[in-house]
Amino acid sequence: MSRLDHFINRMVSQRACLDHAIALTATMEGPVFELGLGNGRTYHHMVEKMPQRAVYVFERAVASHPKSTPPDDMLILGDVHDTLVQALERFGPTATLIHADLGGHNPEKNDAFARAISPLVEPLLAAGGLMVASDRMYFDKLTEQELPADAVANSCFIYG
Amino acid sequence: MSRLDHFINRMVSQRACLDHAIALTATMEGPVFELGLGNGRTYHHMVEKMPQRAVYVFERAVASHPKSTPPDDMLILGDVHDTLVQALERFGPTATLIHADLGGHNPEKNDAFARAISPLVEPLLAAGGLMVASDRMYFDKLTEQELPADAVANSCFIYG
Ligand SMILES: C[S@@+](CC[C@H](N)C(=O)[O-])C[C@H]1O[C@@H](n2cnc3c(N)ncnc32)[C@H](O)[C@@H]1O
Ligand code: NI
Ligand code: NI
Repeated sequence: MSRLDHFINRMVSQRACLDHAIALTATMEGPVFELGLGNGRTYHHMVEKMPQRAVYVFERAVASHPKSTPPDDMLILGDVHDTLVQALERFGPTATLIHADLGGHNPEKNDAFARAISPLVEPLLAAGGLMVASDRMYFDKLTEQELPADAVANSCFIYG
Repeated sequence: MSRLDHFINRMVSQRACLDHAIALTATMEGPVFELGLGNGRTYHHMVEKMPQRAVYVFERAVASHPKSTPPDDMLILGDVHDTLVQALERFGPTATLIHADLGGHNPEKNDAFARAISPLVEPLLAAGGLMVASDRMYFDKLTEQELPADAVANSCFIYG
């Protein structure tokens, strides 16, 4: 399988998991968190699919496409190691949907990073909320959920 | 449609057009040209699908993923305005497949660029060869070919 095939599978799975989690949490009230803005494609998708929900973006350094740049008051700037801790004070356990795509090209680094932030993410999620991640997470109580049919196993993960 | 949807459509169509053109030119002899390396995903795909064919890459500044960096002797470094002219002297009209994905985010700029390089690309293609492009090209004699069923119209173009 080429890098192009692999990349397409990952994007298609990411969208499938997001759409699935958006549908399952549609009637919940509470903020949505996007961890890692990057180019802003998934952020753009989330805002388009959830016009009535508040989508906060956690990012270290904004470098997104102009069409996908969040307004200042929806941007939580800084390293997620710090900002997720601050978010718990600000929001409490109210997030209805958390999406994380923070990784780069190094699988070992991504795994270490996922281990480090899992305990910071877990307390933010409201009861009944869902977390969608590009990397396997390491939670205490949240458990892995079934993927939608159009997602490729191990290319994204859903927890709840 | 979100930027994520748009992007997935573009990648899926690009792969569909490439695979289609690779299959249709499979028995031809002569080099393959990749115009624009970028991250190197389509280059990786082309090399994987055509292990027996020589794939030359035209690029101004190499910034690809380590797994998708062409060997020095397959890299034609420089601005395509110059290197395509030089390639005609070196190869003559022998290219069996030319893929171009040179555009950026500005549709007007992409169109102007496609107009400028069309006359430089056209003489390189062998009789029976195919050109796959992310932008509409402006050829004298080459004509637009039907897209494969899994490509989205206007997100890629095939000429022959
Ligand atoms: C792969 S990109 C996200 C791509 C995005 N999902 C999209 O569709 O365009 C990852 C982003 O996470 C950010 N990031 C990585 N580590 C971070 C950290 N410790 N704190 C905050 N942001 C971080 C990077 O700056 C980068 O913008
Ligand atoms: Ni990679
Ligand atoms: Ni764009």
